[in-house]
Amino acid sequence: MPASFTRKLTVEWGHCDPAGIVFNPRFFEYFDWSTSLLVREALGVEKAAMRTIYGVAGIPLVDTRATFHRPARYGDEIEIVTAVAAVGRSSFEVEHKLFNKGELAVEARETRVWVVEEADGRLKSRPMPEDVARRLRT
Amino acid sequence: MPASFTRKLTVEWGHCDPAGIVFNPRFFEYFDWSTSLLVREALGVEKAAMRTIYGVAGIPLVDTRATFHRPARYGDEIEIVTAVAAVGRSSFEVEHKLFNKGELAVEARETRVWVVEEADGRLKSRPMPEDVARRLRT
Amino acid sequence: MPASFTRKLTVEWGHCDPAGIVFNPRFFEYFDWSTSLLVREALGVEKAAMRTIYGVAGIPLVDTRATFHRPARYGDEIEIVTAVAAVGRSSFEVEHKLFNKGELAVEARETRVWVVEEADGRLKSRPMPEDVARRLRT
Amino acid sequence: MPASFTRKLTVEWGHCDPAGIVFNPRFFEYFDWSTSLLVREALGVEKAAMRTIYGVAGIPLVDTRATFHRPARYGDEIEIVTAVAAVGRSSFEVEHKLFNKGELAVEARETRVWVVEEADGRLKSRPMPEDVARRLRT
Repeated sequence: MPASFTRKLTVEWGHCDPAGIVFNPRFFEYFDWSTSLLVREALGVEKAAMRTIYGVAGIPLVDTRATFHRPARYGDEIEIVTAVAAVGRSSFEVEHKLFNKGELAVEARETRVWVVEEADGRLKSRPMPEDVARRLRT
Repeated sequence: MPASFTRKLTVEWGHCDPAGIVFNPRFFEYFDWSTSLLVREALGVEKAAMRTIYGVAGIPLVDTRATFHRPARYGDEIEIVTAVAAVGRSSFEVEHKLFNKGELAVEARETRVWVVEEADGRLKSRPMPEDVARRLRT
Repeated sequence: MPASFTRKLTVEWGHCDPAGIVFNPRFFEYFDWSTSLLVREALGVEKAAMRTIYGVAGIPLVDTRATFHRPARYGDEIEIVTAVAAVGRSSFEVEHKLFNKGELAVEARETRVWVVEEADGRLKSRPMPEDVARRLRT
Repeated sequence: MPASFTRKLTVEWGHCDPAGIVFNPRFFEYFDWSTSLLVREALGVEKAAMRTIYGVAGIPLVDTRATFHRPARYGDEIEIVTAVAAVGRSSFEVEHKLFNKGELAVEARETRVWVVEEADGRLKSRPMPEDVARRLRT
């Protein structure tokens, strides 16, 4: 089964807008961090060490889709279930399902790319180490 | 021709992450604000007055897709071209094209819903006033 | 002993700037939420219920000071110790101490005001209910 | 006269919280960027070039105080006047005055440190180049 990560969090006052609901960019913050946690868990490598071990400069988002089914509000206890949906050569796909009081509130699917810093300082996508691909897949 | 809005902005230090590039949720902040500006311009109504005039509580995002072609960095002068792509009964679609040094860096397409606050305090989507739909279309 | 609240959190990638350290406004987000959690714990009232029970529209910051002794980085496990430092008639003071690997990294002291929404929609500071003041003090 | 920088901006929907007012950490974002703009203007150096020319890794905040006199709301056109208040050996002080409809809404004073990246990758405060100090002072 592909790598997955589930976490709970409470919607903060500062995540919400004057309509009293989560300001949409905040959901992308939640998902970004969930993906980081999933990757850390799958690779068994501390964040700070990833660059050193794998030479990766980051795993930027190249494509994302999100559907917002219902809002989340200040104080809501939400749950985010994140799972690898597909693994390619230099990219992988991640799905997020955000539940609010047990109901699916937001769904997102993103494509992440494995990026390294070249000698000249440029960021470039590169094939993932086989070890990384395998750990994301299983 | 449908309503559109173009603006320029400079990528701030605080918009960027440790890889030195714009942290992806910030792009959704940029787009959210561009949509607000487009709507204000199209309707000819000041932000603060929209709720009073149209009774609208917000125009939340219900669906979005974004593709990130190239990064933007601290200090980059970017341009965001936003245009209405389709107008429905209680929703409309908006397209954003973000250019960095003249090159397309990010594309996004979002669906916005016209939401009012019901007497019981709930937020609910509702048909847009005909005047609003017409102004978005032309 | 005055009310206090301690929490741990991990510094997220998106909290950090191109220098690789927490972007300073994020510390104020951390502290804002710590104050909310302290207040919830002290009053024994769920966030969503505070407005209903006490009629409070918010507890905005009117004054803050922060000293940044050492940076925090992506992946750092930090601890924030928050305590009520003084309780006035319509305001109270809160102190935050943020520790990174056991060392004091940031200190802040803030003044919060008890604000209600008047009949005309204006936000106004008001004396705290005696019950609230007592719970913050002890 | 010391270096100064004034800018106008519109309070965005996403800057505001459920009480309808600017979420306090956003003010620190505004101020952070105003300080960057002031420094760029004073030094006559593009952001991206500062590191190359002066070897500076950043000018982090080490101390700040802010007083919030009145709120700012979604759509408010605000003006931020930023000026160097004092210049030391390896640090300088900056004052921000944020006006909303001509009235002083927020005041802040911050201490910034000139930080370089050492050969071992550590960030360290260092005396500012004399040219930098002179430009900030006048």
